[in-house]
Amino acid sequence: VPTYKLVVMYDGSRFAGWQIQPGLPTVQGEIAGLLKRICDEPGLRVAGAARTDAGTHALGQVATFTSSRTWETARLHRALNRLLPSDIAVASAEEVDGSFHARRSAAGRVYLYRIACTPVLSPFLARWVHHYRRPLDVESMRRGASQLLGEHDFSSFRAAGDTSATPVKTIRRIEIADREGVVELTVEGTSFLQHMVRAIAGTLLEIGRGHWKASRMETILKARDRGKAGPTLPARGLCLVEVLYPETGGRRSLPGAENR
Amino acid sequence: VPTYKLVVMYDGSRFAGWQIQPGLPTVQGEIAGLLKRICDEPGLRVAGAARTDAGTHALGQVATFTSSRTWETARLHRALNRLLPSDIAVASAEEVDGSFHARRSAAGRVYLYRIACTPVLSPFLARWVHHYRRPLDVESMRRGASQLLGEHDFSSFRAAGDTSATPVKTIRRIEIADREGVVELTVEGTSFLQHMVRAIAGTLLEIGRGHWKASRMETILKARDRGKAGPTLPARGLCLVEVLYPETGGRRSLPGAENR
Repeated sequence: VPTYKLVVMYDGSRFAGWQIQPGLPTVQGEIAGLLKRICDEPGLRVAGAARTDAGTHALGQVATFTSSRTWETARLHRALNRLLPSDIAVASAEEVDGSFHARRSAAGRVYLYRIACTPVLSPFLARWVHHYRRPLDVESMRRGASQLLGEHDFSSFRAAGDTSATPVKTIRRIEIADREGVVELTVEGTSFLQHMVRAIAGTLLEIGRGHWKASRMETILKARDRGKAGPTLPARGLCLVEVLYPETGGRRSLPGAENR
Repeated sequence: VPTYKLVVMYDGSRFAGWQIQPGLPTVQGEIAGLLKRICDEPGLRVAGAARTDAGTHALGQVATFTSSRTWETARLHRALNRLLPSDIAVASAEEVDGSFHARRSAAGRVYLYRIACTPVLSPFLARWVHHYRRPLDVESMRRGASQLLGEHDFSSFRAAGDTSATPVKTIRRIEIADREGVVELTVEGTSFLQHMVRAIAGTLLEIGRGHWKASRMETILKARDRGKAGPTLPARGLCLVEVLYPETGGRRSLPGAENR
């Protein structure tokens, strides 16, 4: 059956997260609702690569759906963007191999957590950052963060309600940049526990503001105790930047395409 | 009496403009309401440099108020930012000379109008730009804009409801930049007619998309007829960037301050 891949951006501020919940505005609900109308298939279902929480944003969420008919992706793309509310946009739409699935095929996710550490928070940033009024020690934060690289039991950064099969996850990349007073934490991993990035950000904030030493990160990680780490920072500062797929990302390779 | 100058930033999306209107959310209403409480002066009044329309944003609106008492500006500043909603922020607060008035002392205003001309509009830009799906001819727009420089009768760009004493205004600077698919129109003038920048932006959009030639701008200006110019683009794309004051900007010069 024809399978389609969408890359979706959203300002998560007014949504109860990605995943459909009865009676609540959700990103998946908005997209699935429109696709059912456009494709005239009431049973159409949309899969997402990551279940972003209420208030979390996305630059590169990936969604897949199958249809009984073949659609011209450029038209589908335009129709979706015309009908979606302005806080959701489809960056790209393409037909993919039927074996491709947004979540199951994903090999990694990249998240960004942003902390504005300026006395005054700009109203033009307020929707997408956490605000901390004083400067942060970015070097200490980097030393703390580096201790999380690799495969670990991340129980210390796991939400009480997390339903993952295992608390063991792998962080492949963790970087901290300071862009004009906004501290940007980028974390890449295979997959994440619920609230994991927000709890890591909260722990790094304790280090950055000098409340804890960078070396404490290792103690916290080894404790496997949520009570030992810093607070879960607000969803507002979190953004799903990219979902990574092996090789083609499920792109339908046309015969002879490799010669072009 | 002690007089205070505030530089105010706001995301105008949910406001019925700057100016207080009974029963509607306004920026002036939010700030005046808080200052009355903080200063415990029910009669306190706040003046703004520009009456921005519903939906228009500001990076540098200027407001002044007088109080019967002297306030430590750093504390007043912090108190305001703690209590204001996240779509309004006070960038700075200072005591100024009693003769200083946000509107009457202003010598100029700088506005920015932004048009995103990309096929897909990012949800992270949607609140502060107008969206036009195709590329614009920025060179033609510049040629058209240059014809507006100087003192002219701007009746062709004047809203029906405008109450200015005269349609004659001076544009001192008009610039167009293209920043990664967002066309930015910057206009500096002494003061503006209602909707003037939005009507200029709408006319330049007609030129940029190739519907009109750049040379038509002169004909439109000379016609002094609102019907001849382009449409008034949405307030969403407009931002009051800066209010200009002669010399000190009303800053209270302390005796001996010039020697420091």
